[in-house]
Amino acid sequence: MNEPAAPGRVGDVRRRNLSLVLDSIARTGDAKPSRAQLAAGTGLTKAAVSSLVADLVESGLVSEVGLYRDGERGRPGQGLELSARRGVVGMEINVDYLAVGLVDLGGSLRFRSTVESRNRGLAPNVVMERLGNLTAEARAAAAADGIAIMGGGLAVPGLVDEQRNVVLSAPNLHWEREQLNPRSLLEDAPLGVRLSNEANSAALGELWYGDGQPDFLYVSGEVGVGGGVVIGSELYLGPGGSAGELGHIVVHPEGPSCSCGGAGCLETFAGQEAIFQAARIPEGSLSERTELLLTALAAAEPQATQAVHDAGRYLGVALASSARLMDIETVVLGGHFAVLNEWLRPALLASLERYAPGLLDPTHLTVSHLGHSGTLLGAAGQVIRSVIESPFEFLLASKLA
Amino acid sequence: MNEPAAPGRVGDVRRRNLSLVLDSIARTGDAKPSRAQLAAGTGLTKAAVSSLVADLVESGLVSEVGLYRDGERGRPGQGLELSARRGVVGMEINVDYLAVGLVDLGGSLRFRSTVESRNRGLAPNVVMERLGNLTAEARAAAAADGIAIMGGGLAVPGLVDEQRNVVLSAPNLHWEREQLNPRSLLEDAPLGVRLSNEANSAALGELWYGDGQPDFLYVSGEVGVGGGVVIGSELYLGPGGSAGELGHIVVHPEGPSCSCGGAGCLETFAGQEAIFQAARIPEGSLSERTELLLTALAAAEPQATQAVHDAGRYLGVALASSARLMDIETVVLGGHFAVLNEWLRPALLASLERYAPGLLDPTHLTVSHLGHSGTLLGAAGQVIRSVIESPFEFLLASKLA
Repeated sequence: MNEPAAPGRVGDVRRRNLSLVLDSIARTGDAKPSRAQLAAGTGLTKAAVSSLVADLVESGLVSEVGLYRDGERGRPGQGLELSARRGVVGMEINVDYLAVGLVDLGGSLRFRSTVESRNRGLAPNVVMERLGNLTAEARAAAAADGIAIMGGGLAVPGLVDEQRNVVLSAPNLHWEREQLNPRSLLEDAPLGVRLSNEANSAALGELWYGDGQPDFLYVSGEVGVGGGVVIGSELYLGPGGSAGELGHIVVHPEGPSCSCGGAGCLETFAGQEAIFQAARIPEGSLSERTELLLTALAAAEPQATQAVHDAGRYLGVALASSARLMDIETVVLGGHFAVLNEWLRPALLASLERYAPGLLDPTHLTVSHLGHSGTLLGAAGQVIRSVIESPFEFLLASKLA
Repeated sequence: MNEPAAPGRVGDVRRRNLSLVLDSIARTGDAKPSRAQLAAGTGLTKAAVSSLVADLVESGLVSEVGLYRDGERGRPGQGLELSARRGVVGMEINVDYLAVGLVDLGGSLRFRSTVESRNRGLAPNVVMERLGNLTAEARAAAAADGIAIMGGGLAVPGLVDEQRNVVLSAPNLHWEREQLNPRSLLEDAPLGVRLSNEANSAALGELWYGDGQPDFLYVSGEVGVGGGVVIGSELYLGPGGSAGELGHIVVHPEGPSCSCGGAGCLETFAGQEAIFQAARIPEGSLSERTELLLTALAAAEPQATQAVHDAGRYLGVALASSARLMDIETVVLGGHFAVLNEWLRPALLASLERYAPGLLDPTHLTVSHLGHSGTLLGAAGQVIRSVIESPFEFLLASKLA
């Protein structure tokens, strides 16, 4: 950390090695490796590891835990883990609610709060102010737990230009080319706030903190239907960064008009709002309507049953097409698709069998266990991953901060 | 070439540098670089370049051409190019025809022959025998031109296991898990014969020898409809290697049954056979039927016009869905979609505007200029690219041969 960071000189080697050691600690997870184990695992000398770990501990990224004998020469060793005293705030703006979560470096969700908020058509600054109030709760929770907030991740249900903090298009919010100032949500956080797409964040949450396989399609079910494609443990973003728009796959060419300007999109049959309307669930808050829908399904009420059956059928059409085009063999259902899985699944499986027989093994069609926390974990996780990949930059930023 | 090829020793450096020099010659194309220019471009010493080039010339991969003054010290220099005396045979089995082409290392198609052949339902060994007869023509053409055949590429309209030479599924041929022996087509060729998917090969042909952009979707129009997705100048194959199955995207959930076992697939509306049937073109050879269809279209015959309109419309649905999912912004139409472009395009553009307004710029929806040669070029090109990437292996193989 004290060497000059001149490119191509000593700084570069230390930069790489800091990342190597931090990544090894992150991967080892619960095993809490000792310095000696890290040296063996990375191929670095014990002296080098000790020096790198000293920087990581001093910066607060890594904590020493427990005391055990590491065997080799009978000396007592200390286990190392990503610090539980450093955290990142995950934030989500969705059509019917706002959510925040505090995620520590090890990936534990330490605090979570959600409020219903009808954001459709509201000006971004109004929504951002409401979110700011909710974020204050996460800050208070962090202070109470002695957790220093490093940065934040903000997920929105639309296409974003992450570099410029612009929401390019979020039709269900009626937002088009809206400039946000996410940094204002966490002004003191050294790493700022990173803007991302909701479905992509949920997919990354699943990859890093859920049952993540190296290749899968995450299906996000909110008012909008989104998708996050993970291939080779990386998000597939496409040439322009807007891949995975599963909700706007055309599932019926004579289908209804869609908020995207198109027609017959999956979202018009399987989005939350589409299901509520088809099931004749009266207006109300999201939780009230969900409750009414589940009650109607449990009572085998025909309109509700048909609405969810149709959603499952058309989701099957979209997944059949996706599997053909991208060679996807594993699907993780999130959001309301997870909530409705019991009722939706038979129609979904029948549809897959009709449109792409034998292509997707039903056991590879799973439900996310992270629930709505997946998006918060993924939004925060992107900041955590960037620190693990480039701890040197964080160390420099901390020094300056 | 004379150093031992022990891994991690001198052999590895030479291996890398041979590829570096050969790739530089390939990229420079028509400019025919001198040894001095290669040294400047690669950062290798002139002595190293001369030694590497000597091996490449001796092996026949590179030719010296022309004589010009390279300026630097007034010495005469010789330009270098990929040899036109080494070739690869591209071969294609399709539902209605067989084709072979001889491609020299520089990518020129030196010979091409196609025969109509109704291969649907024929046993693979019968088809392979017919293809063998056609391949003999390419061998004769190569001998007449003094071209040594290095290897071959065989494209088939189906999913393949390239490593095991198995056609996993080619529904339009009625082939399912068929073991082929492509090597038998060119027994003396040192590099053997590589099996590939037809649409993927055509996409690579477009990338390397056509108007290839770094990112595009190639649409193959034959009896089957296929797709090849190129992202970042690489084929996107997906986790299991079978991505790009554009023909089996569901474009109408109440559509007819498809050869894949599904229903409502693009192929059932826009495949060659589907268009001929909808246009009421009588049975006959592919060229006869194509001629009849074009005549009917020119005469504005209603059934033919409607058939091609529907094909364009449903192709638009599939491209809208593909663009949403994979963020594809450029599409290259091949096969019968290229032939029918004039009649199909209005419906295609209207459909794209209806289902994904503003997403695909019509100027980014182009027609392949390679025609049916694209598949042959791409099938052969994969072997050529593997030599350019690993010339050392070829040099070793040639010595042993």
